[in-house]
Amino acid sequence: MKRLARFAVGVVALAGAAGCLTARASEESSAKATPIFGVELPDGYRDWPLITVAREEWLKDIRAVLGNERALDAYRRGRLPFPDGTIIARLAWEYRASEENEAAFARVLKGPPGERFGSFVAGHPVNGVQFMVKDSKRYAATGGWGFAQFDDGKPADVKVHQGCFPCHEAARERDFVFSRHAR
Amino acid sequence: MKRLARFAVGVVALAGAAGCLTARASEESSAKATPIFGVELPDGYRDWPLITVAREEWLKDIRAVLGNERALDAYRRGRLPFPDGTIIARLAWEYRASEENEAAFARVLKGPPGERFGSFVAGHPVNGVQFMVKDSKRYAATGGWGFAQFDDGKPADVKVHQGCFPCHEAARERDFVFSRHAR
Repeated sequence: MKRLARFAVGVVALAGAAGCLTARASEESSAKATPIFGVELPDGYRDWPLITVAREEWLKDIRAVLGNERALDAYRRGRLPFPDGTIIARLAWEYRASEENEAAFARVLKGPPGERFGSFVAGHPVNGVQFMVKDSKRYAATGGWGFAQFDDGKPADVKVHQGCFPCHEAARERDFVFSRHAR
Repeated sequence: MKRLARFAVGVVALAGAAGCLTARASEESSAKATPIFGVELPDGYRDWPLITVAREEWLKDIRAVLGNERALDAYRRGRLPFPDGTIIARLAWEYRASEENEAAFARVLKGPPGERFGSFVAGHPVNGVQFMVKDSKRYAATGGWGFAQFDDGKPADVKVHQGCFPCHEAARERDFVFSRHAR
């Protein structure tokens, strides 16, 4: 399972956001940009509005999907396909049991401390940060989406990016995006 | 456990954000405002930046904590106490197993379908939406925080709001806020 998970981190981003493939050569790739798609880390993405949250047990994470204004606008209107300029980000953190929360719940609810509540919070970042960038011309071969994964701020390798689109094809009817907007 | 959970939904919001109490009478309460604290549903909170995510097994939810610009600014600077005007929001959704994600993972990873991945997404909203509003004078009796819970957009009752502050007292050293900013 461990090997499987490691493979899959780069390959899928289902409840998350980005995947990546195609044998298309990337002329614009650089040390800062991802292979294949040439995507650079978007500015300010950490403060974008929340699309939804998710949990992947097999990847040991809890995650959030954020979107830029164009992404949120499309979600609010319920309009597909997403317009060019849309960017969707998937962040993930270690799924960490919170002793602090357990203790506080137990204190207020007059019960014994322990792990009876099952309170989990976001620990350190894991599984990279992934993006889907809409540009219907530039990324015509992959449904109009460029895919990107950054590990500690650095673009992941080609192999990682080859797995994104094949997985996201399963969401073709929703413009290749799995995440729904959580009301 | 069921009764305990029902009690606690209104009483605690640990990995979330808001709690509420005190016998202070609220003169400004209205049909729109919460009892005790007189907080109205903040405009536009759904699109505020993400502070962190969490999961409460005992409340059967997966949740997100969002903050207005003042909240995020304080988190970024690592400065306590939070300034007046800070608002922190806790949203929660049903913790729903995703058959769609399981199927897509299984397809790409060439395994049998089933529940081997443990992929969970946000379902319908549950457990109300809670807020902590900083006003060090107005809410001096409760650490400078007003607490609020809305269920389907309507203020929860007095009993619900009486439980917030006693629980948040456990986080006194972090200005009564449990949530940490997830990088």
